[in-house]
Amino acid sequence: MPTYKLTYFPIIGLGEPIRFMLSYMEVDFEDIRVNLEQWAELKPKTPFGKLPVLEIDGKQLHQSAAICRYLAKQCGLGGKDAEEDLNIDIAYDTFTDFRTAITSYHYDSNEESKNAKWEPLNKETIPYYLGKFEELLKSNGGYLANGKLSWADIFFVSMLDYLCMMAKQDLSVTAPALKKLADQVLAIPSIKKWVEKRPASIPLK
Amino acid sequence: MPTYKLTYFPIIGLGEPIRFMLSYMEVDFEDIRVNLEQWAELKPKTPFGKLPVLEIDGKQLHQSAAICRYLAKQCGLGGKDAEEDLNIDIAYDTFTDFRTAITSYHYDSNEESKNAKWEPLNKETIPYYLGKFEELLKSNGGYLANGKLSWADIFFVSMLDYLCMMAKQDLSVTAPALKKLADQVLAIPSIKKWVEKRPASIPLK
Repeated sequence: MPTYKLTYFPIIGLGEPIRFMLSYMEVDFEDIRVNLEQWAELKPKTPFGKLPVLEIDGKQLHQSAAICRYLAKQCGLGGKDAEEDLNIDIAYDTFTDFRTAITSYHYDSNEESKNAKWEPLNKETIPYYLGKFEELLKSNGGYLANGKLSWADIFFVSMLDYLCMMAKQDLSVTAPALKKLADQVLAIPSIKKWVEKRPASIPLK
Repeated sequence: MPTYKLTYFPIIGLGEPIRFMLSYMEVDFEDIRVNLEQWAELKPKTPFGKLPVLEIDGKQLHQSAAICRYLAKQCGLGGKDAEEDLNIDIAYDTFTDFRTAITSYHYDSNEESKNAKWEPLNKETIPYYLGKFEELLKSNGGYLANGKLSWADIFFVSMLDYLCMMAKQDLSVTAPALKKLADQVLAIPSIKKWVEKRPASIPLK
């Protein structure tokens, strides 16, 4: 069995999709959580100055989506052929567009610019994407792609709480198909176990 | 032979990687370029309200990276196994981080916020990424991954002029390995032919 060591901040963010994937795979992993002081020291030792970094048998990997897509191939959460992979990748990239709209608001350090983003985000972008995701989920048997669970579903659900925090609203309230998907993913025994035992997030300062 | 119809704006942007991939594959494609007036009418007919959209035999696909990864499998620009795919995906995602830092500056509509981004972008982010990409290219025989040409190289090079325009500088001046990769990709006969015949970009208004 390979050894897995994940390094990330003590939050959900882009580390949680990998934590969910490793939990789904039922493999043990070291869950290293660094604060900003430790990060300053660690940063130059990472491949591109960013976290998460997953070490598999000591080899450093970065980029959460690339890592999840790779792990998915080992546990049946990728597609069965090129067309299925394409559908999963389209769903994941679309989730990223949605996430980016929210993080672009949340992490904006210019107060005036941030405030100006709120109304279009809240009144247009979020309802638009949620409506479209509902259609997508309904046309795929409750999943984002191919009528079955994939790493894109795991990725989306693992970050949902974090997105809700950044978007200052419960995103699944008006999105019953998304709520159902989230409930289903969170009911997978190995993921349920992870969520019950994971440390509480600590806001970065 | 499938029929390919690409719809995008009359610019390089995220349409050009697909145009490059289709050119590399030496397949004919319709290169539909819409202005903002046409776009307003077209938008509701697209899968998620965004371009590019590639129709293959009439089936609408969106998300440029997902599409390029899919096309790559058909023309030998993907990996030969899961590890090679992982390396390509890491390189692509890292390119996206770099691109996003530049677009976050270029497309910022708040003048104060935009101005504040310039110095860290120009003095820190751009030199940091270019230096790291140089290391990556040198350790991979001049390519971004696996010592051979992949869709990640095509993606990066196809957007390089656009990135230079947004970053207000020639990014390859201080990055000889990147310059060499760009020259090499642009010398591939089918890509060279495309670049020579492609319509000039028309700034969106």
